[in-house]
Amino acid sequence: MYNFEYYNPVKIMFGQGTIGHLPALLTNRNKILFAYGSGSIKSNGIYEQIKQALAHKQVIEFQGIEPNPEYETLLKAVELCKKNNIDFILAVGGGSVIDGCKFIANAVKFKKNDPWLILEGSESDSALPIGCVLTLPATGTEMNPFAVISRRSLGQKKDFTSAHSFPQFSIIDPTVTYSLSERYIINGIIDPFVHVTEQYLTFDVNSPLQNRQSEAILITLIEESAKVFKDPNNYDVRANLTWCATQALNGLIGKGVPQDWATHAIGHELTALYGLDHAQTLAIVLPALLKNQFENKKQRLAHYSKAVFKLNYATEGKLAKAGIDKTEKFFRSLGCKTRLNEYGIPKKDIKKIATKVLETSAGKKLGEKKSIGQEEVVEILELSYSNNS
Amino acid sequence: MYNFEYYNPVKIMFGQGTIGHLPALLTNRNKILFAYGSGSIKSNGIYEQIKQALAHKQVIEFQGIEPNPEYETLLKAVELCKKNNIDFILAVGGGSVIDGCKFIANAVKFKKNDPWLILEGSESDSALPIGCVLTLPATGTEMNPFAVISRRSLGQKKDFTSAHSFPQFSIIDPTVTYSLSERYIINGIIDPFVHVTEQYLTFDVNSPLQNRQSEAILITLIEESAKVFKDPNNYDVRANLTWCATQALNGLIGKGVPQDWATHAIGHELTALYGLDHAQTLAIVLPALLKNQFENKKQRLAHYSKAVFKLNYATEGKLAKAGIDKTEKFFRSLGCKTRLNEYGIPKKDIKKIATKVLETSAGKKLGEKKSIGQEEVVEILELSYSNNS
Repeated sequence: MYNFEYYNPVKIMFGQGTIGHLPALLTNRNKILFAYGSGSIKSNGIYEQIKQALAHKQVIEFQGIEPNPEYETLLKAVELCKKNNIDFILAVGGGSVIDGCKFIANAVKFKKNDPWLILEGSESDSALPIGCVLTLPATGTEMNPFAVISRRSLGQKKDFTSAHSFPQFSIIDPTVTYSLSERYIINGIIDPFVHVTEQYLTFDVNSPLQNRQSEAILITLIEESAKVFKDPNNYDVRANLTWCATQALNGLIGKGVPQDWATHAIGHELTALYGLDHAQTLAIVLPALLKNQFENKKQRLAHYSKAVFKLNYATEGKLAKAGIDKTEKFFRSLGCKTRLNEYGIPKKDIKKIATKVLETSAGKKLGEKKSIGQEEVVEILELSYSNNS
Repeated sequence: MYNFEYYNPVKIMFGQGTIGHLPALLTNRNKILFAYGSGSIKSNGIYEQIKQALAHKQVIEFQGIEPNPEYETLLKAVELCKKNNIDFILAVGGGSVIDGCKFIANAVKFKKNDPWLILEGSESDSALPIGCVLTLPATGTEMNPFAVISRRSLGQKKDFTSAHSFPQFSIIDPTVTYSLSERYIINGIIDPFVHVTEQYLTFDVNSPLQNRQSEAILITLIEESAKVFKDPNNYDVRANLTWCATQALNGLIGKGVPQDWATHAIGHELTALYGLDHAQTLAIVLPALLKNQFENKKQRLAHYSKAVFKLNYATEGKLAKAGIDKTEKFFRSLGCKTRLNEYGIPKKDIKKIATKVLETSAGKKLGEKKSIGQEEVVEILELSYSNNS
């Protein structure tokens, strides 16, 4: 096991009716930015609950943080915070709203002129405190310090992390997921699934506890996802999927072990260039990446096949291959496409995509063994076309 | 799944050589109480490492926090802190030293006259900040707000928890466990094992992730314990056991599920009355309690047998029974006694012990179903004698 540091001070309020804790959590907060997305919270009752909870506060609303939160949009919120001396940001939404608010919170306190530098690795000095009401479980951002921001004018999608970006609290009420459309339910299963595989499908460092904790999330996601469409108002199913999503990226399972994240790096560029949902890109890239990196990941893949899919073949190679196959079949069983051509992206674009991946990584090779360079990204994207399995 | 709140802000520095992080963690701390146990840290090099790390600080040493930390001893440290305007407590030791320091930290800031009230449920107002260097993995106190304190003059052992008792940081270097005697290694396996069963061997509330996370710790403890005596200087084995111990009681696996803790309640009285090690008492009480509460726990016990011990019997009853048997055999395989008579405690004491258990609980019945009253404690203790299986 590697040495590690673990710190996660986010207070989680989990369960039905927990939005009711909001007033108590906001004692001593006076001027609050209430930030949300397109306004869907106005049709499912959440907006009213929040407004009621904030009744005795000075509240500035900021509507319109879009999926893959846009830098230009967020800058408007930064101005609003500065102008109104906001002392707390309440993010109500899914990963995009919360990620956007993490950026706003850091940018308000950023001392250099250009807040884009935060996305280019410049450490932020401090941040406004933020709290979250999660409405769309998927990214795990409600319990971590990470965020991903897009800047469409540059065709870029970049992540950042800052010690100041942990939400002070996150309210997670699984009943708010009842109203999600099928597409978001599917994304909310695939995204955490791949968060786990990025921290688990690597190589062995003798960390059986972390392995089993990863497998616990993967198996539970698979089992519960088989129930959610049949029984969409089953509270426990929603609660289990939601808690899996939070745990998949709260940092715990990745402690002391190698991590990959190349699937995310390639996926981000597919979103930046073609507007695919984040989870859709992961479902395309992961199976192809596992095939391309087969030798590096073979041992763990074989273990994964046994532990997660209960497969049993005589050879490590056969087991490992079957694990990749099962992974893609699982994504497809949810109704998610897993091939680049299914989204109409022409093969001739592959080189351009690969170039962008390496540009964003500043030329650094990706993967837990730093074995994925431009050439490998091209191979992975080629493998992600049908008939190239 | 039940609603829950989760909050754990302890910063963990895990791995070989992490005591070296101490100076950075103590920036801005000036007057430090350096508290430890009997002085064994002077023979294994830890004391010197700590002294070196604290070289530029004002340090008051407090030696002599005993196993099952004694109230009278801790009061002396409270006086020392007050007299010297201590602003930080560094606890270097195992569960007893850290628990003792949690009490000292709260008692220094306690406004009422009698600090014993903290153990009787009076909320503490604030506490001195504490940091830990863990030398004996077992109780999980390094990453939670709980503590257990003994007062021998009253024959009492009581726990308390306070929002102010989370350590600010805990340094966990598995190499410091190389010098532990066999007895402490065994305790450090049984104690976390039973911490998990207290949160897991209850009844089902549809929480498959928490169940699997519990099983992950139990299976890993069993597997790694089979290696530690054969290969005592294997770093990974020590690291895995140590990380299991922390995770067994950092609050996570118990979130959203029923919890028992009756084994601990009964065990505490055995320690208070006869001086048995905490883990020794758990190994005696748990198998007997599972037999006594068989009907309440049968379903989960059967699941446990399959998931943890890979057993397979046709009936739930048979599976459940086999799980209890395997648990006791596991404790015995470590070299730990599991019967009350093996410690020479006379059967005629049973009623007295049971009376004390219920006195400490203020007459409240114990267990996840509140089904363990005085009569059941007597039955459990009777079952814990040999030939009463």
